[in-house]
Amino acid sequence: MIDLYTFSTPNGQKASIALEELGLPYTVKVINITQGEQFHPEFLAINPNNKIPAIVDHSVPGGLKLFESGAILLYLAEKTGRLLPTDLAGKAEVTQWLMFQMGGVGPMLGQLGFFNRFSPTKIPLAIERYRNESSRLLGVLDRHLSSRDYVAREYSVADIALYPWLVGARNAYPELFRALRGVPQWLERVGARPAVQRGMKIPNLAR
Amino acid sequence: MIDLYTFSTPNGQKASIALEELGLPYTVKVINITQGEQFHPEFLAINPNNKIPAIVDHSVPGGLKLFESGAILLYLAEKTGRLLPTDLAGKAEVTQWLMFQMGGVGPMLGQLGFFNRFSPTKIPLAIERYRNESSRLLGVLDRHLSSRDYVAREYSVADIALYPWLVGARNAYPELFRALRGVPQWLERVGARPAVQRGMKIPNLAR
Repeated sequence: MIDLYTFSTPNGQKASIALEELGLPYTVKVINITQGEQFHPEFLAINPNNKIPAIVDHSVPGGLKLFESGAILLYLAEKTGRLLPTDLAGKAEVTQWLMFQMGGVGPMLGQLGFFNRFSPTKIPLAIERYRNESSRLLGVLDRHLSSRDYVAREYSVADIALYPWLVGARNAYPELFRALRGVPQWLERVGARPAVQRGMKIPNLAR
Repeated sequence: MIDLYTFSTPNGQKASIALEELGLPYTVKVINITQGEQFHPEFLAINPNNKIPAIVDHSVPGGLKLFESGAILLYLAEKTGRLLPTDLAGKAEVTQWLMFQMGGVGPMLGQLGFFNRFSPTKIPLAIERYRNESSRLLGVLDRHLSSRDYVAREYSVADIALYPWLVGARNAYPELFRALRGVPQWLERVGARPAVQRGMKIPNLAR
């Protein structure tokens, strides 16, 4: 059994989508980051970097603690032998686009969100910087997806990493998506998967 | 033979350090990002995201093209069976800290560098935001390294990913390092490795 420490954010949804796709049994532990629960000592013992998601895999003797959504995706994929090719070249293609999300799409959309919505003062230079970079990254992915069904050869953890971030971005900044073709079609394709739909609803905070 | 497309930046140095550690023969191809060479069509055919480093591994039939420094590190490690444990738990620990660098330390120090040095106007809110987050991340790593020689059980691609970023940060923001103990000792330990010293000097632009 796996404990998933998560909240309703794109990084959290990556982990729940992967667990749903893989059919691994897991228990959702809500870490309400709007109430500072990521700073509680019990959670810091799992992730000293105070961010969700994190997992504890109790099937490993002693319990394997793991944080960083990208590392969780690769671990779950290798544990099950799914959502990641086993040949070196195929695996490299997937990790390349996973890193593109981890180091590019995620941080840049994250900074755009901060300066656009949460910053105490509006700073046009910062908003424009992150809007332009987000738009550029979306364009790179759009051209890549114009001739492909999925980010790599087959549906993989790279699609799972990108999907919740791009769903959120399309809702928040629809104007950035208007000229795109490959990304919207891919969003439809990935979003039609039942496991993706289930994973996006974790944690269910309405209960 | 591997072609390494790189420039004298922390992300580029990650790749050259790994190649030096692994003793893999490689040819340096300088992409001068101060002159826009990352936008040349020949390079965009290798990395459509116009960033260094990228590699082409000609030992793979047809030539394997790969971008994103984190993906290059994992690929080279798996290709050689070194700098990354082969057991799932050990590998997960390394990828966790590699992702911490890719999604946290790199982007946040990168934004601090922009607002501190390159931004056309000085924006105190942005400088403070990225200085605080960089300092927080350094603190997380410092506590982790206070009881360890390396980021994971053994020297790995996680150390290689973090080293050039932290060397750069220590030079640029020595005040952020003054209260640290684990990180400075680890910088000494990693920096003493001959392969790290060679890798940090790639590309040699003085020639």
